[in-house]
Amino acid sequence: MSGDACKNLVDRLIDDLCIMPGIGQKSAQRIAFHLLQRDREGARYLGRSLITAMDEVKNCRSCRNLTEDEICRICSDERRDSSVLCVVESPIDVMALEQATDYRGLFFVLMGHLSPLDGIGPEDVGMDLLARRFENEVIKEVILATNPTVEGEATAFYISDLAKESDIRCSRIAYGVPVGGELEYIDKGTIARAFSGRQKMP
Amino acid sequence: MSGDACKNLVDRLIDDLCIMPGIGQKSAQRIAFHLLQRDREGARYLGRSLITAMDEVKNCRSCRNLTEDEICRICSDERRDSSVLCVVESPIDVMALEQATDYRGLFFVLMGHLSPLDGIGPEDVGMDLLARRFENEVIKEVILATNPTVEGEATAFYISDLAKESDIRCSRIAYGVPVGGELEYIDKGTIARAFSGRQKMP
Repeated sequence: MSGDACKNLVDRLIDDLCIMPGIGQKSAQRIAFHLLQRDREGARYLGRSLITAMDEVKNCRSCRNLTEDEICRICSDERRDSSVLCVVESPIDVMALEQATDYRGLFFVLMGHLSPLDGIGPEDVGMDLLARRFENEVIKEVILATNPTVEGEATAFYISDLAKESDIRCSRIAYGVPVGGELEYIDKGTIARAFSGRQKMP
Repeated sequence: MSGDACKNLVDRLIDDLCIMPGIGQKSAQRIAFHLLQRDREGARYLGRSLITAMDEVKNCRSCRNLTEDEICRICSDERRDSSVLCVVESPIDVMALEQATDYRGLFFVLMGHLSPLDGIGPEDVGMDLLARRFENEVIKEVILATNPTVEGEATAFYISDLAKESDIRCSRIAYGVPVGGELEYIDKGTIARAFSGRQKMP
């Protein structure tokens, strides 16, 4: 990122690597020297890949997910069930759900969550587009998979109100104890929700 | 790195980011989405910086350090003392020594260490170039700053033999307890070396 013309290429590369989240000066040095000494071809690929992605990736016009197409692959896949819409906060959540579940409906990616204190209102997270989809499409169920945080919760409530206006059934992903966890180490709030939300044994 | 033409740009970027040491699938996802959503300009800089560095950075003809010039900035700096040569394993070590000390001599970067079992012999770490410098230049002292590992140690011995042939004084960086460490947590080998290498109080 540095425009410092006096810096040599290696120092500049190290500075530029530091723009990545989680990469500090030491890791950047290690990465730079590793690439220079062991994998120049891979690093050139990565360089081109970064530039191409930054130039061409935009938001899907239907679900706001990141894609280089007008309509992303999930939205344009006719084998998927367009009557179910799962609302998530970020593209990573789409990946996580795709990998973990056999969900075959569509997604809507807010690219954030409502946060009035930070000046993030309904338009900023695509609520206008979502409302239009609720009105114009045949949607039977909306699955709210925003994060289990205060903001994610508030965002889920907002969308559930929107959906009610169009008479669409809404569900929220379940709260409870994480699979593989031990009760001893789980916070009280989660245990309380898991207890009150207990389900009949099959 | 993936040549998979079927993958979309975002997935390809995530794959390509994984070539960096210490970056797995999850970190790559986080980095890709962060750059796409928050810092496209920075990511383009990084992309160009990677390509330029990979294309233009080579080894200094005098010290083998990485640089885009024929002779690196340290070697071509006339204010530095060319009669002292500090031998290190990698460019990171040069940076570390430059930042930690007020050393004003020159460096020689082996770009590795001797490791006969891995097929890394003297020529691979530039011993021929180093021997020529010992013969042709006026060098008074060689400081051996290879790593305190078995291979680093063996490499230091090899160079000290080379230097003896040209009647050059050799020194090895000191072993001892790390500054700020507590004896309780330091390994026996280090404590033994620190004890036997004890120095007179000034």
